[in-house]
Amino acid sequence: MKLHYPNGKKYTPIAEQTKNTSKKKHNYGNRGMTLEEDINVTNQFYLEIGKAVIHKKPTPVQIVQVNYPKRSAAVIKEAYFKQASTTDYNGVYRGKYIDFEAKETKSSTSFPLNNFHDHQINHMMLVEKQMGICFVLIRFSSTDEIFYLEAEKLIKFWHRMNQGGRKSITKEELATHGHPISLGFQPRIDYIKVIDYLYHFD
Amino acid sequence: MKLHYPNGKKYTPIAEQTKNTSKKKHNYGNRGMTLEEDINVTNQFYLEIGKAVIHKKPTPVQIVQVNYPKRSAAVIKEAYFKQASTTDYNGVYRGKYIDFEAKETKSSTSFPLNNFHDHQINHMMLVEKQMGICFVLIRFSSTDEIFYLEAEKLIKFWHRMNQGGRKSITKEELATHGHPISLGFQPRIDYIKVIDYLYHFD
Repeated sequence: MKLHYPNGKKYTPIAEQTKNTSKKKHNYGNRGMTLEEDINVTNQFYLEIGKAVIHKKPTPVQIVQVNYPKRSAAVIKEAYFKQASTTDYNGVYRGKYIDFEAKETKSSTSFPLNNFHDHQINHMMLVEKQMGICFVLIRFSSTDEIFYLEAEKLIKFWHRMNQGGRKSITKEELATHGHPISLGFQPRIDYIKVIDYLYHFD
Repeated sequence: MKLHYPNGKKYTPIAEQTKNTSKKKHNYGNRGMTLEEDINVTNQFYLEIGKAVIHKKPTPVQIVQVNYPKRSAAVIKEAYFKQASTTDYNGVYRGKYIDFEAKETKSSTSFPLNNFHDHQINHMMLVEKQMGICFVLIRFSSTDEIFYLEAEKLIKFWHRMNQGGRKSITKEELATHGHPISLGFQPRIDYIKVIDYLYHFD
């Protein structure tokens, strides 16, 4: 398969483009990896040691036109990015359903709630009702601080905004209501440690 | 958004093309719906009544070239279908992780095991180890018979094949080791009924 990179630029998923473009050059020991990359290697590590089976869902795409060249693979010639109706990551840990979304912000003081869509919040509410383990991972890219915030608490901040309150969660609120995760080597972002603590699995 | 259908033909997802092309014209009361469509309306029904949150994963696509026209949405101009490394459906029911794959065959006597890839079987083994609820839904399109087969049992048939045994599961074996599901109105394919029975949730 030939790879065409127009203008010599590598294709970057749309989800990444809308985020902080400076995040690929951290100087805090995470070797220039995006939050998504860090989570992918974490999930890969969990998979390899048999700890959990958690995957990122494929990017949803609306396919419009496909060519079928003779003796070659089908080529998608026209397609569009669709808004995800669920969160990006899900899987299983000790029989339990795990579901989460990961977001980063370049703000150093608060996390803007417009990083989430109504659809995603709605999905999280449904998963909560169904007793799944649901949360978000939030990274402040300027300082590499990562917080695990339970969906239940995110939803409360979401309601506060909808009732005319602030449109973001301050870092202090995240420190109070969430759980900081320090970057490690293997796994990079050990979010299951927080799950073990919250649900008394350890 | 303009839709281009070359040759006047509607685009059909690749997964559908590799299956029985006659399946869209059943005469057994399923109104020409594919297995995938039936499962999607079933999952939508479960979602609406608050029974379970189960979604089909997006088709995995390798994106190679994207154009960004001014004032319009990004257009994917070159992409390829990727082989899925997991199963198509997953979600949560009563806190438990649910994971399954759905396949149909035009054979009336047995289900060919080459409908599954190594990757998928491997994924099912990992989910089983992680105590997720994992299974396949198999439809014989000529008679509209549907069976629920636990992943654990599918894996045994897979091993039999790898040890030189038959490359398919006979319908008799499915009747013995699986669970028939009759087509309903709402939900269309009530696979949670089988889960309730197997895991004593009812």
